[in-house]
Amino acid sequence: MAPNLDPYFKQVDKLSESFIDRLRKAVAIPSVSADDARRQDVVKMSEFLVSELQSLGAHVESRPLGLQPGKKDLHLPPVIVARHGSDPSKRTILVYGHYDVQPALKEDGWATEPFTLSIDDKGRMYGRGSTDDKGPVLGWLNAIHAHREAGIPLPVNLLMCFEGMEEYGSEGLDAFIEKEAAKGGFFANADAVCISDNYWLGTQKPCLTYGLRGCNYYTIAIHGPGQDLHSGLFGGATQEPMTDLTRVMARLVDTAGQIQIPGIKEMVAPLTEEEKGIYGKIEYSMANLHESLGSETGIFADKENTLMARWRYPSLSIHGVEGAFSAPGAKTVIPAKVIGKFSIRTVPDMESEKVDRCVFEYVKAEFAKLKSKNTLDVQLMHAGNWWVASPKHWNYTAAGRAVERVYGVQPDLTREGGSIPVTLTFEKATGKNVLLLPLGTSTDAAHSINEKFDRRNYIEGTKLLGSYLHYVAEEEMG
Amino acid sequence: MAPNLDPYFKQVDKLSESFIDRLRKAVAIPSVSADDARRQDVVKMSEFLVSELQSLGAHVESRPLGLQPGKKDLHLPPVIVARHGSDPSKRTILVYGHYDVQPALKEDGWATEPFTLSIDDKGRMYGRGSTDDKGPVLGWLNAIHAHREAGIPLPVNLLMCFEGMEEYGSEGLDAFIEKEAAKGGFFANADAVCISDNYWLGTQKPCLTYGLRGCNYYTIAIHGPGQDLHSGLFGGATQEPMTDLTRVMARLVDTAGQIQIPGIKEMVAPLTEEEKGIYGKIEYSMANLHESLGSETGIFADKENTLMARWRYPSLSIHGVEGAFSAPGAKTVIPAKVIGKFSIRTVPDMESEKVDRCVFEYVKAEFAKLKSKNTLDVQLMHAGNWWVASPKHWNYTAAGRAVERVYGVQPDLTREGGSIPVTLTFEKATGKNVLLLPLGTSTDAAHSINEKFDRRNYIEGTKLLGSYLHYVAEEEMG
Repeated sequence: MAPNLDPYFKQVDKLSESFIDRLRKAVAIPSVSADDARRQDVVKMSEFLVSELQSLGAHVESRPLGLQPGKKDLHLPPVIVARHGSDPSKRTILVYGHYDVQPALKEDGWATEPFTLSIDDKGRMYGRGSTDDKGPVLGWLNAIHAHREAGIPLPVNLLMCFEGMEEYGSEGLDAFIEKEAAKGGFFANADAVCISDNYWLGTQKPCLTYGLRGCNYYTIAIHGPGQDLHSGLFGGATQEPMTDLTRVMARLVDTAGQIQIPGIKEMVAPLTEEEKGIYGKIEYSMANLHESLGSETGIFADKENTLMARWRYPSLSIHGVEGAFSAPGAKTVIPAKVIGKFSIRTVPDMESEKVDRCVFEYVKAEFAKLKSKNTLDVQLMHAGNWWVASPKHWNYTAAGRAVERVYGVQPDLTREGGSIPVTLTFEKATGKNVLLLPLGTSTDAAHSINEKFDRRNYIEGTKLLGSYLHYVAEEEMG
Repeated sequence: MAPNLDPYFKQVDKLSESFIDRLRKAVAIPSVSADDARRQDVVKMSEFLVSELQSLGAHVESRPLGLQPGKKDLHLPPVIVARHGSDPSKRTILVYGHYDVQPALKEDGWATEPFTLSIDDKGRMYGRGSTDDKGPVLGWLNAIHAHREAGIPLPVNLLMCFEGMEEYGSEGLDAFIEKEAAKGGFFANADAVCISDNYWLGTQKPCLTYGLRGCNYYTIAIHGPGQDLHSGLFGGATQEPMTDLTRVMARLVDTAGQIQIPGIKEMVAPLTEEEKGIYGKIEYSMANLHESLGSETGIFADKENTLMARWRYPSLSIHGVEGAFSAPGAKTVIPAKVIGKFSIRTVPDMESEKVDRCVFEYVKAEFAKLKSKNTLDVQLMHAGNWWVASPKHWNYTAAGRAVERVYGVQPDLTREGGSIPVTLTFEKATGKNVLLLPLGTSTDAAHSINEKFDRRNYIEGTKLLGSYLHYVAEEEMG
């Protein structure tokens, strides 16, 4: 039975200016986790959340994570955990977000002050963290707020986990989640997880995201001379590491994106007829791709292959070279040691270690062909697994109904090409279904200058999060 | 008839402490031309030279070069020109050196204060500029000084040209030299040119340098997307400029140093039997190469081929990539525009423009094979010609006799793989033979930390420069 959400929606609309004010206060705190000098602001932002959550009647704890590894006397910001309701007859939903933000300076090219929420006449609310991820985090608080004001009890027990180091590698979070998800921990009773920290595929149609690619990041270090040499003095007389590196890297992938390393393609799960049907229905066009790229240099001419290439096939990108000359201008150097960096985006059913073995074997074999006296070392720098959830799980059907209720359309079922490591951590630690439920759009410019969050997406997003809690409370388990 | 140099040599020995004191004063002036904030020290160093030259009885002029291009209100340091003697019955020798130095900071790893001359118990005189090029410049002043004190007239008219921007591209110098070498100019009467601003091949045996390779420096820019992209979001869906660049650069040269661009090798002057005989006699060993490289990654197993590869054959070095990820750590970027940098060292009889044409044609053809939608632009960034003088010219035979007189050995006749552009400028402007007569050794660490000049090379070098003036005065023209 469809829940009666009208009083809640009405209350959200009524409170919308106070919700925007809440976001304005949050954006004004420059909680940049990558900047040690801003650490006090990250802590200040955690205190803001604690105070807001307390005033909304939630049980809140600020959990310290200890000192930041590799830093002297610098404490990690706390994880804020909160609970609203603990009725054993209700479902328990665990939500995650982060309250830290990317760095931002006006002189980077912002049109407005990055830490002042600036709303234009189209309702675009500019400010660092507006969409990533302060807006969505406050969406959960707003949902509680509107329920309270409307006198409607929350239909679920709501567990919250808000961290302050997401933009800097979520230091210390994995162990924390594992501990709290275990028996007796704060998250132990969660029945499902919902994360709102990604984006719609376009600007008009909401989506639910059920898959992410993984990423295995590699370095190829080649060294020869004991120090950088002058190419005038030694060019022609010595084997050059940069020559070798270029030759080895040129063998990794071709212009059409085909990975040249034997054994990789063979690990990819075959495309089923059912899956094949998904892509055509998704609201996306080649014009969308070209707009994102800022060019028409896509590999495929059609939407279906483009989406599959981004979501369900592996890719290999060469990111750059460390140790070579990289500044503007001219330098006549023979770099002594160069480190090529590339990564492979992984998908079902690729096994991370098997990918590593294929890469190592191939890179070494290609280098051997050069008959070089230089030395090669190929290493995995880090690996994050791919993730795919079942979009047929009740957690997803509930969210789908909520989208339909708020936006009047069925959401697209999407995957993403990038990785959100915490997704996999929650899935593993809780053993429950994880749903990615984005509020913002593809044009929000997270991590970029002029980051924004549309007023509509904030207010309707608050409705969506609240509705989701109602639908998820009613879904059949199974 | 061999000149009687004994009274001069005796006087040099007698004055040696005051010569070292002169170098101490010069090193103490941090005349770093690359650092705008040090410009006043560069000017101070020019004033020191003016004052020293005046006290030695030379006619001196400090010639302004105007404002530094691209800088606001920053004047270039002056060129110091000086004349000692103007007897029309004597030969006129033009010497060149520079009084500016490379940057140096103690914290770069210097064992001593870089701008304090520090002499150890082996007579190694450490200090920025000691060998490059203040020591050799002062060598000429010392030679005048010792002649004066010994009451021996200089056997030639000596013209001097000391610049203050050599370590920063000799801004403004070419036009100055061309003007002064023309009729009526300060250098118009020069019969030959001598430059002391390079180094012995090893540490024991002096050399005369009669050739330099040229350098054509190229950029290959490949661009695709309108801005850098996230490899998770777009990897596999877009053609990547870095993939294309790597593939094109891999086709330029192989591990054995063989340039793959058709037409380059064909331009190289064939090795004559006479030239072939030169290399075996030169004091050099593979151990010397390995010491310089800090590794045993040389291409050739023998001295002769190694020296020829450094001096008389072209080479191609890939220097690096601008626009790609080059920092330590991991970044999952698809760079939107990457600029590969490489250069070709040129030798007789390669024509610069013809080399360009071969490069452009080949790079474009290799890129076309990729069938990429990205855009390629290959450009020459700068070109400096190779230079070879005749070592049989009287300027060289005189210098050879001077070396034999001072050091008791015949100098090696060497070429260098790098370029010293001013050499070619003087040759072209004066139309006279140019000799490179180095004083310092291969271990002097010019441009590096702990730059030094051996006391022996300074004092015997002063004798060498003075002797050279006597022998060159007596040589038969022709």
